[in-house]
Amino acid sequence: MSGGFRVAIVGATGAVGQEIMKILLERKFPIADLKLLASARSEGKKLKFGDEELTVSEAKPSSFSGVEIAFFAGGAVSKELVPEAVARGAVAIDNSSTFRLEPEVPLVVPEVNPEDLEKHRGIISNPNCSTIIFVVALKPLHDAARVKRAVVTTMQAVSGAGKEAIDELLVQTRQVLAGESAVPRVFPHQIAFNLIPHIDVFFENGYSREEMKLLLETRKILHDEEIRITATTVRVPVLRSHSESVNIETERKLTSEEARVILKEAPGIVVQDDVDNCQYPMPLFTSDRDEVYVGRIRDDISHEKALNFWIVADQLRKGAATNAVQIAEALSKRNLL
Amino acid sequence: MSGGFRVAIVGATGAVGQEIMKILLERKFPIADLKLLASARSEGKKLKFGDEELTVSEAKPSSFSGVEIAFFAGGAVSKELVPEAVARGAVAIDNSSTFRLEPEVPLVVPEVNPEDLEKHRGIISNPNCSTIIFVVALKPLHDAARVKRAVVTTMQAVSGAGKEAIDELLVQTRQVLAGESAVPRVFPHQIAFNLIPHIDVFFENGYSREEMKLLLETRKILHDEEIRITATTVRVPVLRSHSESVNIETERKLTSEEARVILKEAPGIVVQDDVDNCQYPMPLFTSDRDEVYVGRIRDDISHEKALNFWIVADQLRKGAATNAVQIAEALSKRNLL
Repeated sequence: MSGGFRVAIVGATGAVGQEIMKILLERKFPIADLKLLASARSEGKKLKFGDEELTVSEAKPSSFSGVEIAFFAGGAVSKELVPEAVARGAVAIDNSSTFRLEPEVPLVVPEVNPEDLEKHRGIISNPNCSTIIFVVALKPLHDAARVKRAVVTTMQAVSGAGKEAIDELLVQTRQVLAGESAVPRVFPHQIAFNLIPHIDVFFENGYSREEMKLLLETRKILHDEEIRITATTVRVPVLRSHSESVNIETERKLTSEEARVILKEAPGIVVQDDVDNCQYPMPLFTSDRDEVYVGRIRDDISHEKALNFWIVADQLRKGAATNAVQIAEALSKRNLL
Repeated sequence: MSGGFRVAIVGATGAVGQEIMKILLERKFPIADLKLLASARSEGKKLKFGDEELTVSEAKPSSFSGVEIAFFAGGAVSKELVPEAVARGAVAIDNSSTFRLEPEVPLVVPEVNPEDLEKHRGIISNPNCSTIIFVVALKPLHDAARVKRAVVTTMQAVSGAGKEAIDELLVQTRQVLAGESAVPRVFPHQIAFNLIPHIDVFFENGYSREEMKLLLETRKILHDEEIRITATTVRVPVLRSHSESVNIETERKLTSEEARVILKEAPGIVVQDDVDNCQYPMPLFTSDRDEVYVGRIRDDISHEKALNFWIVADQLRKGAATNAVQIAEALSKRNLL
């Protein structure tokens, strides 16, 4: 570490934190100094960063003195510590939901609305994983034909609930195969060989917070309060990529051929759509990739101006860590740090 | 076995055939004689039926002499042998797709269109598993408010592809946990810890046959050529229950409260919809049940006259074997055998 930014990662020991470290290295993000922060429980833990071994410290307000970029991997800690980091002059890139819908906080997916970074006041929010994946594919189609309504069903990997959730799927799967009973701890029910149509808490209207995020965050990112979205979010026994079955109605007719061309040219997207050769996005084969994979692009036979498609992307990377690092890169490029 | 019908099961050694045997016993279907038929490979195999041990014979045209009801568990054999069974005086209840869309063949879900049995000419088709589950929930809502359009995403258990597919999921899961590579045989890709948006072959329009079945079979069962349905069907690493995320647009506004009341009163349905207590249908807990479970019933926030709900049912039971046995019961009750 030499010429570059003074960086901190809060939640460095978790699934997203670990991925941020990996991606900072991969993308050669210029770092002068890296502080790994976590809860008191992890204090003193050693973590590899390239050739160096770094020691985790407890995240406290004073941890942010001298820090220029503070990545917050997510969770309840953001509410208290993001303002502390900003007060000490850091720019906070926050993966929690805490500030996402605050009017003065930009909510950014660099392929979609990088210009929103210009008006930041210290905090930039990273959208929810399923929103990021969705808007990367939605934006170019929205620009081309204006999306009026979307009906979305997500199938979300356990990684979205953190490292313990990944362990829970693996442990429960072994238990089931051994004929033992699987005890749920992280999820409300057994996830091994099961589907749970419940992510985050439920609201009065019957939607879960995860489902409402897809609507509210997409509206904010696209600066379009007219777009209508209904979502059903389901936890599935997959390790780390999220999948989304999407139906969109557009103002002007967009054919599947046209959509395919638009998506192929759009940033951050890989079109994988050759059903005759069994080519379509699948979570297993998009893990550890930064792109959003789109396939099964079809004219909707039930509506003259609608399309179906299927999106898959690595929840920990583009759905969280990669997007956060891309925000830091965009801030740097725009001299906003 | 004494007073009752002379019954044959073709494909008795497969996943659906085994389930038909179980359900005939459970429901005390009156059987005078039971012939277990399968391919030459299974000839001589012994299978338990209650206290008796029966020997499997090779299914041949002559097997159906004296048979009154022939259950066909599915597959290519139906095309050749269903007509042979009918020619010998049997009524064939066929779980394959071969005759489903033939105009003179009733396609029946007993809760939905039992009256169609009246005009049978020897063959009654059992609909596709995902269609059965779907129409049981759709019919009462369609009667109440006329469903104009449905956007459906299915998450289908491996049991839909037979016994070998169930084994494949279990074997691959063990392989992955052991750090070995998982070799796909039944499915086009690894299914363990993965999702495959591909069931059956693809058509020119980009839809799979499984997706088109949901439209074409539902139209036939409901006798409504106007209803519009678009589906995305996905194979998931679940053992035996299918799940469906459904969005319907209705002619007149149907509130979620009204839908809940209608579904509670409808035959063959269990409404499991108490999100505050984490109660919603899940494949793990609907296996070995005959009912279709419906939950997550919500007014669609993206459309004034639309509703979301989530359906789960055991693919081998209501999705196949139970429906077939219910058809036999309905035929018997209506003196149509």
